[in-house]
Amino acid sequence: MKYRRLGRSGLQVSELSLGSWVTYGNQVDEDSALETLSVARDAGVNFFDNAEVYAGGKSETLMGNAIKKLGWDRADYIISTKFYWGLAQGPNRKNTLNRKYLRQAIEGSLQRLQMDYVDLIFCHRPDPNTPIEETVWAMHDMIQRGQALYWGTSEWSAAEIVSAWQIAERHHLHKPVMEQPQYNLFHRDRVETEYARLYEDLGLGLTTWSPLASGVLTGKYANGIPAGSRSTLPGYEWLQKLVTNPDWLAATERLRSISDKLDCTLSQLAIAWCASNPQVSTVITGASNKTQVIENMKAIDIIPQLNATLRDQIDAAIGTVGVSTPA
Amino acid sequence: MKYRRLGRSGLQVSELSLGSWVTYGNQVDEDSALETLSVARDAGVNFFDNAEVYAGGKSETLMGNAIKKLGWDRADYIISTKFYWGLAQGPNRKNTLNRKYLRQAIEGSLQRLQMDYVDLIFCHRPDPNTPIEETVWAMHDMIQRGQALYWGTSEWSAAEIVSAWQIAERHHLHKPVMEQPQYNLFHRDRVETEYARLYEDLGLGLTTWSPLASGVLTGKYANGIPAGSRSTLPGYEWLQKLVTNPDWLAATERLRSISDKLDCTLSQLAIAWCASNPQVSTVITGASNKTQVIENMKAIDIIPQLNATLRDQIDAAIGTVGVSTPA
Amino acid sequence: MKYRRLGRSGLQVSELSLGSWVTYGNQVDEDSALETLSVARDAGVNFFDNAEVYAGGKSETLMGNAIKKLGWDRADYIISTKFYWGLAQGPNRKNTLNRKYLRQAIEGSLQRLQMDYVDLIFCHRPDPNTPIEETVWAMHDMIQRGQALYWGTSEWSAAEIVSAWQIAERHHLHKPVMEQPQYNLFHRDRVETEYARLYEDLGLGLTTWSPLASGVLTGKYANGIPAGSRSTLPGYEWLQKLVTNPDWLAATERLRSISDKLDCTLSQLAIAWCASNPQVSTVITGASNKTQVIENMKAIDIIPQLNATLRDQIDAAIGTVGVSTPA
Amino acid sequence: MKYRRLGRSGLQVSELSLGSWVTYGNQVDEDSALETLSVARDAGVNFFDNAEVYAGGKSETLMGNAIKKLGWDRADYIISTKFYWGLAQGPNRKNTLNRKYLRQAIEGSLQRLQMDYVDLIFCHRPDPNTPIEETVWAMHDMIQRGQALYWGTSEWSAAEIVSAWQIAERHHLHKPVMEQPQYNLFHRDRVETEYARLYEDLGLGLTTWSPLASGVLTGKYANGIPAGSRSTLPGYEWLQKLVTNPDWLAATERLRSISDKLDCTLSQLAIAWCASNPQVSTVITGASNKTQVIENMKAIDIIPQLNATLRDQIDAAIGTVGVSTPA
Repeated sequence: MKYRRLGRSGLQVSELSLGSWVTYGNQVDEDSALETLSVARDAGVNFFDNAEVYAGGKSETLMGNAIKKLGWDRADYIISTKFYWGLAQGPNRKNTLNRKYLRQAIEGSLQRLQMDYVDLIFCHRPDPNTPIEETVWAMHDMIQRGQALYWGTSEWSAAEIVSAWQIAERHHLHKPVMEQPQYNLFHRDRVETEYARLYEDLGLGLTTWSPLASGVLTGKYANGIPAGSRSTLPGYEWLQKLVTNPDWLAATERLRSISDKLDCTLSQLAIAWCASNPQVSTVITGASNKTQVIENMKAIDIIPQLNATLRDQIDAAIGTVGVSTPA
Repeated sequence: MKYRRLGRSGLQVSELSLGSWVTYGNQVDEDSALETLSVARDAGVNFFDNAEVYAGGKSETLMGNAIKKLGWDRADYIISTKFYWGLAQGPNRKNTLNRKYLRQAIEGSLQRLQMDYVDLIFCHRPDPNTPIEETVWAMHDMIQRGQALYWGTSEWSAAEIVSAWQIAERHHLHKPVMEQPQYNLFHRDRVETEYARLYEDLGLGLTTWSPLASGVLTGKYANGIPAGSRSTLPGYEWLQKLVTNPDWLAATERLRSISDKLDCTLSQLAIAWCASNPQVSTVITGASNKTQVIENMKAIDIIPQLNATLRDQIDAAIGTVGVSTPA
Repeated sequence: MKYRRLGRSGLQVSELSLGSWVTYGNQVDEDSALETLSVARDAGVNFFDNAEVYAGGKSETLMGNAIKKLGWDRADYIISTKFYWGLAQGPNRKNTLNRKYLRQAIEGSLQRLQMDYVDLIFCHRPDPNTPIEETVWAMHDMIQRGQALYWGTSEWSAAEIVSAWQIAERHHLHKPVMEQPQYNLFHRDRVETEYARLYEDLGLGLTTWSPLASGVLTGKYANGIPAGSRSTLPGYEWLQKLVTNPDWLAATERLRSISDKLDCTLSQLAIAWCASNPQVSTVITGASNKTQVIENMKAIDIIPQLNATLRDQIDAAIGTVGVSTPA
Repeated sequence: MKYRRLGRSGLQVSELSLGSWVTYGNQVDEDSALETLSVARDAGVNFFDNAEVYAGGKSETLMGNAIKKLGWDRADYIISTKFYWGLAQGPNRKNTLNRKYLRQAIEGSLQRLQMDYVDLIFCHRPDPNTPIEETVWAMHDMIQRGQALYWGTSEWSAAEIVSAWQIAERHHLHKPVMEQPQYNLFHRDRVETEYARLYEDLGLGLTTWSPLASGVLTGKYANGIPAGSRSTLPGYEWLQKLVTNPDWLAATERLRSISDKLDCTLSQLAIAWCASNPQVSTVITGASNKTQVIENMKAIDIIPQLNATLRDQIDAAIGTVGVSTPA
């Protein structure tokens, strides 16, 4: 496993990392969580992505319990959590980044994770109803209190990120250092165009999610939705729509000649392609069992093979599908 | 119940809220306090206004005990307190906003409330004998120590509020986000004229008090002071003078045709009128028993009915009475 | 007793206050300390001046024990301490205002006083071997940690005070609010000339020491040094020289006609004269027994009588003696 | 022993100090550590240099245990530690100055030393992979949390030091006050040329290491490497190369006439020469037993004898050897 700086910060994150989204607390129980974490760590993964909202808080509980059992040294691994969606109904308990919610949220996450601090805290979405200055102060304060080390955003617009950065610079507060956007062969505009100036100007790092475009890029939906797929879980109807998108399915098939040439799976190709963008600090992968982790991690060997020629061939295979995907 | 942002901050407060002023510790004992809080919460109220000085500290004790018994989740409700008047005689114990008083005051309030923090802290009055910079630092420090989340003022002049805001901006401290002024049909100048620029320029929010003009707008004083009225409590002689003001009493009577048309009480009309000003974040209502809370909360349905035509009719009924009332 | 703002700060200090210098731990034991504190408090004194170095730390211990026994409410009294001279030999233990000394010093003082915080902390002298920026940061940090409320200086030059104030303004730190200079009829230059611009420009307050010019202004040295006088204590040879200064003794005698006219003692006149300067926030008086405290406090009644005419007569009586005294 | 200010800071350090590098935990066990510390302290040494990495953490443990047994007053001695190299493998555990490493590192050092704070914390080397702003914030935060009093750098370029200083000034954070460079007769460029502007412009202080040029300036390598020498320890092959450098050995011999004239050893001359540079705050000496400490400390008497004439003679004896040594 290679390690990269999280943007211009000094933190080193593994090229590939493991996220608990969708799986932990739903498909994955505590024993499996422990197993996937352990296998990923053995492969060199040092960043484990989480969020307050994943599985209604159960992801954090599972990951906290598992890491405690594994007995890892706190200096060796990086944990994130994210705030915005909230865990309960109420005007200051969901869909907000206000000071009250954030104070309660970090305390809850640290309890569930059984940790003194998380390494990375994300504003899980922008909140148009809270001034960015209020949120920047709240994130800064979490770092000053020792509850977190670095803060960033997820799915914020370039203008919002710049705004937060500038407020922090003006008031001498900790600046956001990373953004967690969706990034895959079908979803490229934000990372490649909208954020273009932020990498150099702000030193922004990226922890990208959904490298397999909700699983389409695995190729497993070529012949329809297999039984037991993610998209059959209750509440994931939006996913079912994505994985039956005919343009995506066709583009995926056109990639097979390239993955065959590299002697790897479509998934490995898709993950490696994300990581081959030098602005990406780490590609967050998901897995519901240890075999998937092992398979995903083999993408490490593909990354250095993706030279300009191969990347051009991939662009050609995808065509306009990636560009036209709405954010 | 609808919720509004507290000025430009991210905190969501219920349109109507409940205050402990006058009632708690005087007319209202702990059982009644629990009852009024419970009924208000059921109606959607999430902001409960308090002050160190109310009933000489007993308001905070009562509210703290009642909320503890009710077992509310700390993330669900918003508590305020206010500092200035003090609870004891002595040069640094009353009528001041100096650093020494404020340090002692917040510790006392948190003890009486049995809470780790209050959401909102107010400077209950301006203090001409303490530099605003000293007070801004002290309020900022309470927030940094985690004893409070937001700070603001009560009955400060526009110039004083701007001054505090600018000092905070210059020294990178937490800015005041709200003001608690008196606001009702007889007392409009400050909110509608003096503060006019502050809503947009500073993002000021308002938590307004005395929507019923010390009860006059209930109409209950039309035929003289009823027995057991607030204005017969010792120390409330000033109130007796207000509730016998002939101009106010006459103007109140002229509103009856409008409240009749809306099929609501005079009180509900008066409360709804305050809330129909979009600069008002929340209207603090008072009540000495749960029936009054229920009655007051019905004003929620009147708010959306107060269109421009009706507001013009109300202005006509009040005439110059509201404008000419001294602050 | 009247109270005045400590300079432009919001803290109210009694016009006359009580200091432990010279007396506590030397002439005064714990029982007497308790008695003098109690009598002073009864007279309205709310500020009790102390310093780490007084009686080698014993002053703080005595005052701490006495106040604990008296059971005073922490909100009612103001305690100071001062750092610079140190209590032990060693390169970072005396004659310094560096960060290491100040950290150890405040911890020691709070222990001896048995208090959570002191109200006022003074830099007891300027330290040419520590950058003012380092000292300003250390004093600011004590306030931020909650160990003190206000900070100031003692016997600093106007230039040094301005420098500290400006550094605090530039780096957004707590500014010095008071200075403790010697001030009496024989020692006027610094307060009346050197600091002239600081009262308005910086809002500087003064807590002045030695109102009786080491006792000369009591008149008790007119016929030589009485037995048991302070100036006979070991280590006070410098004092012996002062109290036999023929110019001072003669000037003191010339004041008798004025004190006679006011029907007060020479001491009361001298103390009241200091307090009649509106830039003085409080005059620190000393006493070795409760009778002295009672006598000194009678100066309160003299202060309002010192009109311009009387002050001119006092100036005439003193002549050039006060002006020519070296700092 | 004389004491000097650490650069422009207010901290007083002994001209000669004692470091644990190489010796503690390797050649020196706990009893010997206690003995060397005790003898050095008796000679007036008040600064004891340490680093996380020395002997893999054992230096800190040894020094912590020894000082505890010696029962020294915390106000009397100055302890340093240094962070960068780390104690374990892993992407955020070595060769970094990022926020995560630094947080874990200071906690580990304080535990091993059994102290509440260290006086001086050094960035042991520059880290090109962490923004200087991130490191400045982390060092500032350690000071604000009370874990350290002053921070500085070791073997940073002048440009890097200026950069850190300016960031601290701009964001109102604690500035670096000292640098720990190698400095001896064969290694002069950095201290005398590269840093020239920093002493006055930034107030930089120096705690210099290797005054004896890895032992060559003792003269003990004149006839080859003696048995039991440092340079025979495993992992010190680089040292063996240095101590057999023929230019260094020849230059050392040319110094003998000067040390003979001063009636001191070559070591004492070399140590005193470092200290005779007024920009040097303290010269860190090493010793594997108490006799060496006693011998080294005799250099104190040589320092004031090194006048301009003698310094010119020393320069002539060294010739171009010192100038041409690479950093």
